[in-house]
Amino acid sequence: MKSNVCVLGAGRMGSSIVRTLLDRNYPTSVWNRTAAKCQPLAALGARLVSSVEAGIRSADVLIINVLDYAASDALLKQGNVASALAGKAVIQLTSGSARLAREEARWIEAQGAGYLDGAILATPDFIGKPDTALLYSGSRAVYEANKTLLFALGGGTSYVGEVPGQASALDTALLTQMWGGLFGALQGMAVAEAEGLDLETFRSHLSAFKPVVDAALFDAVDRTKARRFAGDDATLASLGAHYSAFRHLLEACQERGLDAAMPRAMDGIFKQALSRGRADDDFASLFPLFRNGSPLQGREPENA
Amino acid sequence: MKSNVCVLGAGRMGSSIVRTLLDRNYPTSVWNRTAAKCQPLAALGARLVSSVEAGIRSADVLIINVLDYAASDALLKQGNVASALAGKAVIQLTSGSARLAREEARWIEAQGAGYLDGAILATPDFIGKPDTALLYSGSRAVYEANKTLLFALGGGTSYVGEVPGQASALDTALLTQMWGGLFGALQGMAVAEAEGLDLETFRSHLSAFKPVVDAALFDAVDRTKARRFAGDDATLASLGAHYSAFRHLLEACQERGLDAAMPRAMDGIFKQALSRGRADDDFASLFPLFRNGSPLQGREPENA
Repeated sequence: MKSNVCVLGAGRMGSSIVRTLLDRNYPTSVWNRTAAKCQPLAALGARLVSSVEAGIRSADVLIINVLDYAASDALLKQGNVASALAGKAVIQLTSGSARLAREEARWIEAQGAGYLDGAILATPDFIGKPDTALLYSGSRAVYEANKTLLFALGGGTSYVGEVPGQASALDTALLTQMWGGLFGALQGMAVAEAEGLDLETFRSHLSAFKPVVDAALFDAVDRTKARRFAGDDATLASLGAHYSAFRHLLEACQERGLDAAMPRAMDGIFKQALSRGRADDDFASLFPLFRNGSPLQGREPENA
Repeated sequence: MKSNVCVLGAGRMGSSIVRTLLDRNYPTSVWNRTAAKCQPLAALGARLVSSVEAGIRSADVLIINVLDYAASDALLKQGNVASALAGKAVIQLTSGSARLAREEARWIEAQGAGYLDGAILATPDFIGKPDTALLYSGSRAVYEANKTLLFALGGGTSYVGEVPGQASALDTALLTQMWGGLFGALQGMAVAEAEGLDLETFRSHLSAFKPVVDAALFDAVDRTKARRFAGDDATLASLGAHYSAFRHLLEACQERGLDAAMPRAMDGIFKQALSRGRADDDFASLFPLFRNGSPLQGREPENA
């Protein structure tokens, strides 16, 4: 027996979720603030509901994908709707911060419902594909009971922990690494062009250099995981070695009038470590500066 | 007939260069400020020279790898040394900025020598290996005449352009992309740990997410190359979509007391574009902000 599902939100992502559920023969109802957006889904077999409350009452599983948590709150935090939640499995796929997920979990559980917070690492057109990654945290019971449904939305689904904010935090953490690399690429291309290099040359060398960059990335992660911050025989480049090359970036920005906001931020972090005589430490030794925005705390493993 | 080579500098990198040249049977002399560092190389067959001038006079090709350009200048910019340079091929492998490379090229060429500026994308133990990348810019004639020697130092050698600073600029550009990704990883790990996630979970998802990140990276490069900054059907995520996820990073830094220097720098760049109503543009549309540290200039291709 497949669960009855109600989806709140029929934007691009919500609509893609509904279509995927219908494809897999889940009895699915859908509600949207602008009802017209539900019509194409009704044509595919989705049941339209007259109100959020009616949708929830008709379902075992509630999936929410609206603009933000404020929009979600506006729908759920009404007496008759809230009282309809008892006994349901609530899967929150609205994009939000870890803090919002934690607060939402408390409130949903106080209504007698189970709460799973999800983060979708994909654009709407990838919903339902074998490699599409969705991260979940919160109630393990809700995750386990609805695994088939969850994997229908993406074959790369995983449960990351019971702390409700963990899916959102992991999503943000992964995107932060990506933004670093993307902003770094834009900054790097500005440096290359300023010296008259064409970006095809940059691209081909970026591609050739990729294995070195990936090795450095995973090395930094592994060292941080193990708190191996002191320089050793396996250190790829010490802080001092990084910084002596980094100074050329500062000079290029200065000479060529390039934006230096990101290099300046990095410079400040490098200098905090170097001014404490850490030039021989591994690059990963910068990590504690990110945790607390204050001086290095020493090299012992910390419990998070 | 193999060229006679003189190497100035017998630090870790210089010594590795000398050993590689001796392996390939290049008659090689070596000079170092602290002469004792040359002894192990002499034992392998390097000829010791009594002065920089004597070294240069005995060689066809001069390779310089010292601490920095100031150290290099101190060696070369003396009357008797400078006059020994005429007719030589000078290969500068000392780490420096594009500006220093340009100035050096002018001075070396004024002495009647050919100048090639190199950047080594590797640590000393990789010198002489088949994949090791060295970038060169400056005199194409010097590059072509010494190709066999240059490829002996690294099979991933390439010539990037006649503007002497281009090797250094490309090196800096590639490292800048790498630093972005590395700083992003440290920042991301701080976010993950703050929510109680262990870094093994972060690592495994980073690895799974890698194809998405790499696709976004090369897409940003290709779009920048083509100045395809407007959002279109192939846009992976608009600026607005990026920013709505990015706000969760700012909130995590605030709530958890994480260092926010890098997120703040990124935020400033995002906001410059968003405040001009560019939410639907592609992520790559941020590029012109890096070129001139000022408002977007439009979308036409520019000549560098």
